[in-house]
Amino acid sequence: MVEKVNLSAAFETVPTPWTPLIVGALNGQHVKLARARGSFVWHHHERADELFLVVAGVLDMHLRDSDGAERVLTLEAGESPIAPRGVEHKPVARDGDVQLLLFEPEATRNTGNVDGVHTIEPEDLRRFGEDG
Amino acid sequence: MVEKVNLSAAFETVPTPWTPLIVGALNGQHVKLARARGSFVWHHHERADELFLVVAGVLDMHLRDSDGAERVLTLEAGESPIAPRGVEHKPVARDGDVQLLLFEPEATRNTGNVDGVHTIEPEDLRRFGEDG
Repeated sequence: MVEKVNLSAAFETVPTPWTPLIVGALNGQHVKLARARGSFVWHHHERADELFLVVAGVLDMHLRDSDGAERVLTLEAGESPIAPRGVEHKPVARDGDVQLLLFEPEATRNTGNVDGVHTIEPEDLRRFGEDG
Repeated sequence: MVEKVNLSAAFETVPTPWTPLIVGALNGQHVKLARARGSFVWHHHERADELFLVVAGVLDMHLRDSDGAERVLTLEAGESPIAPRGVEHKPVARDGDVQLLLFEPEATRNTGNVDGVHTIEPEDLRRFGEDG
C-alpha cells in the first residue's frame, strides 16, 4: 500500500538534533529527516554522496577542499547541495533548529569516518511510524 | 566544487509540464524537478522505485492496486509518497501547475513502460545550469 509522509508531521517526531529519522526507502537509498542545532563534526563518507535539502532555517555548510582550504556555503530553505563521497564537510545551524532532508545510501553513517557523541549506526536509526 | 541548487530558481527554468529537469546526481540516482499540469498517463517502472515530493500545489496520485482496484492519494505541499517498482500510477494536477521533486535511478524514463506524447528518454533530459 502506497502511503504518503507529511514532512511537517514527521519533523515533529524528530526531537534529538543530529539523529536522523528514516522517512523513506527506495532503490537502496534512504530519505531521512534531521534536526540541526549548533555545530556538527567534520567528517566525510567514503562511499556515499550525500544530498542535503534545507526545509526550514539557515545552515552553514563548512567544506574543506582537497587542498585543505575551507569555505562556507550558506543554505536557506529550499536550497540543496550534494557533498560528494570523500569531501570533508561540517554542517552548522545558524540560529535555533534547522530542518534538513537527506538522501543517501542506506548504509550511510551520520558521522562518516569519525566517532563522536553524535555517532549513531545506520541500523539503530528509527523509522517514521515505528514506536520508540 | 560543491554548489547549491535553489529550488525556486530552478523551477523557474522548467517551462514544460511533465518534462523533468535534472538538478542533482548522486549514487546512481537523479534528483529532478517537474511541473505537473492536467493529467499524466498510467504507467509503471519495472526496476525503479520513484519518490515524489510536492513542493507547491495539490496533486492527486492515482494508484492501481495489484487486484486492479484504483484509489487516489491526494498530496499537498510537503507531502511525499514512494511508488514502488511495478506499481501503476498516474499523477494528476488538481489546479494549475504543481511543483514536484522526484528522486529515482538515473535510467528512469518518465512514462515508464508506455510511450506517449509526454515520453522523453532519460538521456535527453536537461540538466540545471546547462543551456537549452
